[in-house]
Parts: sequence; C-alpha cells; structure tokens
Amino acid sequence: MLHQIALLAVVTILGVLQQAYFVMQVISVRRKCKVSPPVTSGPPEFERVFRAQVNCAENFPTFLSLLWVAGIFSHQVLAAFFGLIYLCARCQYFSGYARSAEARLGPLYISAGVLCILIGLSVVGLMAHFVSL
Amino acid sequence: MLHQIALLAVVTILGVLQQAYFVMQVISVRRKCKVSPPVTSGPPEFERVFRAQVNCAENFPTFLSLLWVAGIFSHQVLAAFFGLIYLCARCQYFSGYARSAEARLGPLYISAGVLCILIGLSVVGLMAHFVSL
Amino acid sequence: MLHQIALLAVVTILGVLQQAYFVMQVISVRRKCKVSPPVTSGPPEFERVFRAQVNCAENFPTFLSLLWVAGIFSHQVLAAFFGLIYLCARCQYFSGYARSAEARLGPLYISAGVLCILIGLSVVGLMAHFVSL
Repeated sequence: MLHQIALLAVVTILGVLQQAYFVMQVISVRRKCKVSPPVTSGPPEFERVFRAQVNCAENFPTFLSLLWVAGIFSHQVLAAFFGLIYLCARCQYFSGYARSAEARLGPLYISAGVLCILIGLSVVGLMAHFVSL
Repeated sequence: MLHQIALLAVVTILGVLQQAYFVMQVISVRRKCKVSPPVTSGPPEFERVFRAQVNCAENFPTFLSLLWVAGIFSHQVLAAFFGLIYLCARCQYFSGYARSAEARLGPLYISAGVLCILIGLSVVGLMAHFVSL
Repeated sequence: MLHQIALLAVVTILGVLQQAYFVMQVISVRRKCKVSPPVTSGPPEFERVFRAQVNCAENFPTFLSLLWVAGIFSHQVLAAFFGLIYLCARCQYFSGYARSAEARLGPLYISAGVLCILIGLSVVGLMAHFVSL
C-alpha cells in the first residue's frame, strides 16, 4: 500500500523543507532590519518577507489536503507532479514578494492555478469513486 | 479501503473551497478599503474580515486532524456529518465577524462545540482500538 | 492496518488539545490586558503570548506532516516518541515566551531539533522504500 502514497510523502517532505527555508529567511531579514520577536511590523522590506512566509504557511494545509486527496483518489504521479510545480511557484512567489509586492502576483496566480488543477483531480477522482460503488 | 475515507475526503475538499472563499473575501475587502499587501492593519471593517480569515485558516489543520482521526477510528459518517456542521458554523462565524466582533461569538461557540464532539469521537475510537488489541 | 497508525493518531489528538490550550491562554491574556479582537497589538505581555500561539499554530501542519510520514515510512513508536518530545518542547516554548522573548529560544531549538530528527526518519524511511522496490 505504501507505494500508492510514497511520492505524495516525498512532495510533503519537500514542502516541509521549503517552509523551514522560508522561516530561516524571516529570521535573516529580522536580523538585517533589527526587528526582534514578538514585533511583526517594521520597514517594508521586512514586512514583505514576513507576509510572504505567513502566506505560504497559511496555504500549506490547503496544499497538503489537495495533494493527498488528488493523489489517493485520482492519480498519484499527476498529483505529485503538480505538487512540485506548486512548490516551485511558491519559491518564485517568496523571492518575488521579497523584491516588491507586485512581483509576487505572477507566481501567486500560477500557484492558485495549480491548486485549481488539484481540486479538479480530487473532484474527478471522488466522483469516479462514488459512481463505481 | 477508499470507501472508508471517501466522505472524509469530500468534507476536506469542501473545507478547502471554503478557505479559498474566505481568502477571496479578504482580497475583496482589501480593494474596497484600499489596504494593499503587505499591510494588515486598516479600518475596523477590513481588520475584522482579515482576522476572521486568519482565524479560520489557523483552525483548519486542527479541524482536519480531528475529522480524519474521528472518521478513521470511530465512525466515518458521523465524523463527516459533524465536519459539515463545523463548516456551516465557520461560514456563520465569518459573515458574523464581518458585521461586528460580537456577532462572531455565537458561531464560534458552535464550531468549538463541534470540535469537542470530534475530540470525543476520536478518544472513544482510539480507546476502543487499544482495548480490543 | 489501524494498529500501524494508532499511536500517531494519539499524538495528533494530544497536539490538537495543546493547540486548544494555547488558544485559551490567548483569550485569558486578552481579557487581562483588555485587548479585544480583532486587535492583535497591545502591551508586550499580550504580544508575546499572542505570537507564541501563532508560532505554534503555524508549525502544527509541519509537525503533523513529519510525524505521519516518519511514522508510516520509518518507525511508528519512534515517531510518536519524538512527537511527544516535540509537544513538551512547545509547552516550554509557550510558557517561556510568555515570560520573556529570550526564554523562548532554548525550547525553540529543542523543538527544531526534534523536527530535524523526524525529517531524518522520514528521509531514511522513504529511501528504504524506494530502494526496496
């Protein structure tokens, strides 16, 4: 049974490593801009990196839910593939947001599009499951 | 085996769609109140909608954890049923909070009550599992 | 099959109860410091407890992901054991942060170390799985 979820687990671990990388970027910009916890406001440069990390963390449970439902009920390889694209788009989103608020928009739309594809895969897989009962 | 988790997956996808709806409400109130990211403070109307979305997102992993543990170890249909009630309560919470901070309280108590029921289902299911070993 | 995940489910429920406890601490300090939602800024005492709760909530999906992947692909008892240590470290982190920003650092490093161990367990388990194919 494990081979039906192993790729999903790999993408999950990669996502966790990405979250850790984003947190370390926030720690780094906190030091650079001299903004110590628990303060979360500061120069625009700090606030952009901070918000980028918060936004990626906020979307992580949604992403994992779709990755696993799509992968289990529809097609594991497809779900894992789109999961990797999502993680790449989130990397671009993070580095874009660190530069300027506008530069986050393109990768944000791509990551939203990938989530829509994973929703589609999930819905098709679940419908096929219930029809076949 | 999929039929033992299909209803949980359906409620999960509905929860994801609800999260997406809340995020779109924040985007809409950001435009209306002219509060551009990364700023997260502004007029009370914006701050209420923003906090409502953050609170729902923060509770989403907790909700999913309880939904799945209760559904797998206790009773799938019951867990999915209470999951739907939770999502309805969260909709009421969100629209209530958008009106006033007080109007969020009733649905918040309902959603907390549903989470308590799911905790109860999970604990009973896990205890039954360990006793039957 | 349930016996392969029952301990992970127990640690998950304990983690959910811990999240609920942290949220109740925030409600309590909100009352004490007279900071009503949706406001999230106030005296340092309130901001430290609030940030402690937000930080623990933000890391909860990451923790659960690692707990389950490590437990399923590597060793359930080991993963559940380190999961319990993580929850203890988070308790120390929360009560430390409530006292002072510096007092959060020790338990934060312990919790990060436990997550690294769970990443290691996950990677070893996944590599063993793919090699054995």
